[in-house]
Order: sequence, then structure tokens, then C-alpha cells
Amino acid sequence: MHALLTDRYELAMLGAYLREGIAERRGVFELSVRRLPAHRRFLVVAGIDRALRYLRELRFTDADIEYLARAPGLGDVMSEAMANYLREFRFRGDVDVIPEGELAFADEPLLRVDGTLAEGQLLETFLLGVVNAETRVASKAARVALAAEGRPVFEFGARRHDPLGAPYASRAAYIAGCAATSCEEAGRRFGVPVAGTLAHSYVLAHVDDGEGAALARFSEAFPGGTTLLIDTFDTRAGAVHAASAGPNVRAVRIDSGDLAALGSDVRRILDAAGRSDVQLVASDDLDEHRIASLLAHGAPYDAFGVGTAIALTPDAPSLGAIYKLVEIEDRRGVRVPVGKRSPGKPSLGGARQVWRRRDAQGGLVEDLVTRADETPDETLHLEPLLVPALRLGKLVRDLPAPHEATAQARERAQRSLAALPPHLRAIDGAGDEYPVTLSEALKAFASRR
Amino acid sequence: MHALLTDRYELAMLGAYLREGIAERRGVFELSVRRLPAHRRFLVVAGIDRALRYLRELRFTDADIEYLARAPGLGDVMSEAMANYLREFRFRGDVDVIPEGELAFADEPLLRVDGTLAEGQLLETFLLGVVNAETRVASKAARVALAAEGRPVFEFGARRHDPLGAPYASRAAYIAGCAATSCEEAGRRFGVPVAGTLAHSYVLAHVDDGEGAALARFSEAFPGGTTLLIDTFDTRAGAVHAASAGPNVRAVRIDSGDLAALGSDVRRILDAAGRSDVQLVASDDLDEHRIASLLAHGAPYDAFGVGTAIALTPDAPSLGAIYKLVEIEDRRGVRVPVGKRSPGKPSLGGARQVWRRRDAQGGLVEDLVTRADETPDETLHLEPLLVPALRLGKLVRDLPAPHEATAQARERAQRSLAALPPHLRAIDGAGDEYPVTLSEALKAFASRR
Repeated sequence: MHALLTDRYELAMLGAYLREGIAERRGVFELSVRRLPAHRRFLVVAGIDRALRYLRELRFTDADIEYLARAPGLGDVMSEAMANYLREFRFRGDVDVIPEGELAFADEPLLRVDGTLAEGQLLETFLLGVVNAETRVASKAARVALAAEGRPVFEFGARRHDPLGAPYASRAAYIAGCAATSCEEAGRRFGVPVAGTLAHSYVLAHVDDGEGAALARFSEAFPGGTTLLIDTFDTRAGAVHAASAGPNVRAVRIDSGDLAALGSDVRRILDAAGRSDVQLVASDDLDEHRIASLLAHGAPYDAFGVGTAIALTPDAPSLGAIYKLVEIEDRRGVRVPVGKRSPGKPSLGGARQVWRRRDAQGGLVEDLVTRADETPDETLHLEPLLVPALRLGKLVRDLPAPHEATAQARERAQRSLAALPPHLRAIDGAGDEYPVTLSEALKAFASRR
Repeated sequence: MHALLTDRYELAMLGAYLREGIAERRGVFELSVRRLPAHRRFLVVAGIDRALRYLRELRFTDADIEYLARAPGLGDVMSEAMANYLREFRFRGDVDVIPEGELAFADEPLLRVDGTLAEGQLLETFLLGVVNAETRVASKAARVALAAEGRPVFEFGARRHDPLGAPYASRAAYIAGCAATSCEEAGRRFGVPVAGTLAHSYVLAHVDDGEGAALARFSEAFPGGTTLLIDTFDTRAGAVHAASAGPNVRAVRIDSGDLAALGSDVRRILDAAGRSDVQLVASDDLDEHRIASLLAHGAPYDAFGVGTAIALTPDAPSLGAIYKLVEIEDRRGVRVPVGKRSPGKPSLGGARQVWRRRDAQGGLVEDLVTRADETPDETLHLEPLLVPALRLGKLVRDLPAPHEATAQARERAQRSLAALPPHLRAIDGAGDEYPVTLSEALKAFASRR
């Protein structure tokens, strides 16, 4: 599936490798982030579940191969040998991953492929796409959720980006700590709780009877409880309407204006009407900073709705993950570390493992990056972050069903975020970076190139 | 298809409308951009083709309906009537659109749905998603292509975002003026020319023989011509290697370092080696400003590769398109304009048409936004931008095949960009905004609400 959701150059290189007879040489590719994006102190790993499903399922159909055989520019390497290679393709390599929901930092491989040069290369574009998209969203959503200090954050970014990617983004946001999504398909596929209220258009549509009647009728339809949007005309008047819209009203949402002032006024209006039970939800281009500021000023919000900031992460629109060949068999069959020396973008050779040191309470202390085949001093009780996912192309253990995998990743993220040093959990960016050290053996190995 | 790629609240409102008996009231929804995003002087419309295919194909399957019947929180409105409505759903409204590739500005509807309240509402999330995603990319790609002053721009952003959306983004970039994409699937589905070279990993994989042998072998595989990446170790040495990599070498690509200085040096090296025919391609986190700066400094590049800047548009990560109810039938069957008055986000009521005035040479002069049913003075020779696409749910004319629709949109964009006042085509943002005026009749109508 999705076999042609890849860059042309992956196919061009595959063709060249086959032609040269080196396609089956063993190589190691690692997917990592060279630098943390702006304003990020950590990454919440996401996209791994989808990456593994892709590796398990990737096939080239006859239609794919026929298309490639006629594709201009590829013709010369699209030989019968390449057509056969693609027809028979099954991923048969070994893959280690940092599980979804775990925290990671710059220069730590999130996913490592140890396979043939051909297969490792072919996967690059799709693996980067899913990890870039989902880890970017998760890493931002965690900050937004942390800023809300335990109050629920509803992610409703689906309309801001490509609909086909939206359920995956909603899932990533949920893993990182959002409470629910607006995206119905994310509920179906991944078990993310789905929430929704009404749009301004609903109120506008009640042109004969006005907002009061609109809100009352909407809430009547939801005996299980609902949230009313109250800023279509005048938020304070909307609060009055909501207060008399019946017992099904569980919350009101304010989507424009001076949220701090309106929040207090609406709270007062609801309380005065005997509706202290009705909660307040704020939205309107919120991000972690605006949420923190509202709470710091005592704005009485119980929950937040966030769309653009989570879906498009405007403060760091690109995660910038890369996928690099780090080891390759030479003609004698010896694995050697390789890395490029491009100015500003050097890559360190050698397959890596990441080891995490925790304190007695489980708090994160530091990470040590070693050679993949290195075992640190056992008395340090370091925990390896990369764990085997595929061996010879087979899953080491069955992937949980999508709902279960999502729930597990969310639990892992909650545990890991709670174990993060408080200054890194804070959104203000103050204090030292999380310490990540390279082992001497890794440095020595890498420098051999 | 994709029926649940929608926000929960669309379904909640549908349920409420059905329950209240107003689902079949006629309403007009418009999709527009309230303000041009930062650094944009115009929009290149994209996503419309996909929106129309969605409208034509949208169905709720039995599985969709069964899921919704059990979905927590929706249960109460998910009545038998709603299940029946969804089961029978076919879009039967009228849709007018600004065709893909046309230029548009703030406050101009890109797409207008005139249908029942129920169907118009239900479409919101998906329509916003595709137009937000594709118009965002096209509007940036146009700037990048303009900055290249006729030199080809290769879009290779697929790895930067969700793989499922990548072909659509590549298509949008191509419509707006990019010459080719790296994304193989965009070639297959939409006929976008596909291009690719090699990755650093290819050079690194040739650990026994080094870069010279790697580049020679790669180029041997492409008698139709190829581009070599030369910055894996040392760009000047890479240029020397490329110069002797044989006649198939058509271009070299530099992906790091001081691109201005390296460009000159590499040009000299190639020329001195008798390879003046080999072109230079620059990449490395380029955008329109870096391209313009390279060209202003005389850097001898013939083409550019751009990924992140086009795929993720970091200078304006969100297009911010909105979808608003602007007219609704009241209980007497009279259409009345409606708009919200939320602070900072007011919406103007009344269905709109956009009329473009051109000078004798076809150059864009100004736009007039009128009531949809208003006909401006014919002696002004104004051209209506919104054209009928669907009537009673049927296509007014068949959609061209995807390849053809893409090619037509690209031609339209090229014509329109050429007709734009030069100061708006410039990337520096200087000079007046493009003039967009509202007609007196529209203002009078809207103020009736």
C-alpha cells in the first residue's frame, strides 16, 4: 500500500544499486532530529506505530510497477531486475524504535533500520513523512496540555490541514495529552475521544428566533450533556441565554474577544443564574502561552480548545527529522561507520543506542548515546530506549490494535512527561537543556570514518 | 468516501437541525480567507478540484452509520431519522467556485455552497481542510517560483509532512509554478513531472571506492541524463568528481554550505573541465528570499530545489480559511443575510460574487465584490470569478481527468500571475495591496441583518 508515496530518488538509487550489484549489502539507517525545533525542550515520539505497519505491509502492485516502467526519467534503471525486485519486495530487515509516547531529544535515533541498502533506502520518504508529521504535532500538543495544568485540552485542528492526515495528527495530539479531538475519524480509527459543540452558523441559522432559542434547542437535543458556543453576537448576552438553555448545558465556549475579561463576566453571569455547574471553555487561536497567560491572570476556564497551534505548530512548523545511512558493509563484509561532512549538516557515523538514566523516583536524569552494540556499565541501571520491533521483517511482538496502541502510547507519554525535570516541562524555555552525552566508544568508532 | 473525515460538531448540528425540522431550509455558505496570511500579496486558488470530487462522491456507508450510532456523545441525536438521512445522503446543492490556479484575495469567496442547511454544514471540515492545505502551498510556491525568475524550481517537500497529503501538496506547488516534484505518486495521479537525483547515503554507501566512483556509477545508470549531489564530503572536490562522471551528467546539486561562493567555484571547476553544459542546482532550506538573494549576488544557479518552505510554509503556516453561513431562509422562505459579530472576527452577510476588472492588456486592475445576484454595469466589462460548478448536485460540466485538470490549473495560474501588477508579483511586500472593493448593494444588504 502507498508504495509510490515516496521520492523519485529512492527509486533511482534502488535502480542504481541493483545495477551495481550492491543492493543486498547490509546497511544501517537512522531516523533522528539533528536539533530540537525552536521552543521545544523535548520530543514526544509519534508516528512509529504507523511506520511499523507500513514496513509490514509495503508491497508494489503490478499497477505500481507498470507505472514506473513508463515513468519518464526512470526508464533506464527501471530494468526487468528492478521490476522483479519491486514485485517480490517484502521488508526483511531489523528495526528498533523508541516507542510512541516516549520522550526523545536531539541526535537520538527514533527509529533504526538494519537491512539491505536497497530496502533501507526505499523506506526513507514515507518513514520521514509520518514521523515528521506526527512527532511534530505530539511535541507541541504536550506543551499545550502542560500549560493547561490538568484542565482538558480539546484538539480541533482537522480543518487546518490536509483531511487525509488529520486523524493521525489528532491521534498524536491525544497521545501527548490532549483530552479529545473534533475529528470523528480519529475516534473511529484510534479510539480518541471525540467532542464537539455547535458552530456560529447554527446560531445564525435560527434567524427567526434568535440565539436564546437556538441554544435552548441545541441543548435539548443532547440529554447526555453539551457545550454551547456563546460568542456569536454578544458573549455576555450569550451567557445569559446559555444559563437558561436547560439542564443539558454542561459548558459554554467563548471563541473571540478579551478572553480573560469575558471569562470572569461569563462565570459571574452563570453563577448568578444558579449555574455554577456549567464549565467554561476558551478557544480562539490559543497556544500554550495564551493558555498559561489566561490561567496566570486567574481567568476561570475549565478547558481549552486548540486548533491551529497544534495542527500546524506555527512556532516550529518543521520538525526537521532526517534519515541517514550510518553504517555500511564494505566489500570485505566489515561494517564501517559512515557520515557526511556537509558544512552545518555533518552526520555522525555508527549505529546508536540511547540509554536513559533515572533517579530513584523514576525521574529522568540524563541520556547516554552509545554504539548500538555497546553495553554500558550495568551498575548504572541504564534503560535502553530503542527496543526491537522487527527482526528479519517479522514483528517481534504483534502490534496492538490501533485503539490499544494509541492508549498505550498515551499512558507512556503521561508517565514520561511526569518524570521530566520540572524546568523542561515548563513552557518558558528557561534552564539547562536535558543532558545527552555520547559515549567514548561511539565517538571513537565514528571518528574512524 | 472519507465521510467521517469531519468534525463532530458538523454531525451534532445535523442531528439538531433534523430534530428541529429545519435541516432542509436553504442556506448559503462561503469559504474565504478573512485576511491574507503574513507575507502574501495574493492567493493561488487550489484544492477546488478535490473539493468538487468530494461533493460528487460523498456517501455514508453502513459502517460509517453503525459507528456513529454507537459513538459516545452523539447517541441522542443519532436517531433513526439521522441514520436515514446519512444513508440517503447525496449532495444536491449548487456550488460556485473560483477555478484552481486563479488568483484571489482576502474576503473573496473561493467556493460558495447554496444548498440545504444540513448539507452545507456537513461539508465544512473537509472543504476547509483541502482548500486550506492546497491553497496555502500554492500561494507560497508561486512566490518561490517567481523569485527564481524563470529558472525551474523542484519541489521536494514530501518527507516533511504527512505522506497521504503529500501528492496534493506537490500538485498545488506545480499548479503555482514549480517545474517538478520529487513525489512519485504526484506524477502518477496528477501528471506532475517527477525528478530526483541521489542522496548523500548513495555516496556514503560506496565506502570502498569513494565519491568519484559513486558519482560515475550513478550517472552511468541514467543515459537519459541525471543530476549529481556533490556536497557529501567537500563540494569543490565533488564538482571535480562530477566533471569526470561522464556525459550523462546534466546537472549538479549543492545542498549545504555557502551556496553563493560554492556556486561560483563549482561553475568555474565545471567550465574549466569543459563541462559548461552541466547545470547547477541549489538546495538547503531555500525559500523565495534566499533564492532572490542568490540571484541578486550573481550566483550562477540554473535551478532550485525547495522542500520545507513550500510544504510547510513556515513564514505563514496557516492559511486561515473559514467557512461561513452568509444567507439563510427565514420561516417565510425569504433569504436573509446573516453574519456573526464576534469581536475581531465579524462576518459580512449575503452571498457574494467577485468581479475582476482588467486593463486593455489583460492586466489585473481591481476586484469588485457584489451580491451574488447583482450584475455590475456591463460597460465596465467585469469578469465574474466564481463560476458554476454544480447545480442540484450535478456537475455543470464533467471534471477533466486529474492530469488534465492539473495542467489547466497550472496554465491558468501562469496567465494570472503574469497579469498581476509587478509590485504584487515582487516578493518584497512593498507597495499597495491589490484593490478589492465591496459594492454598495452588498454593503446595504449585509447591514440589514
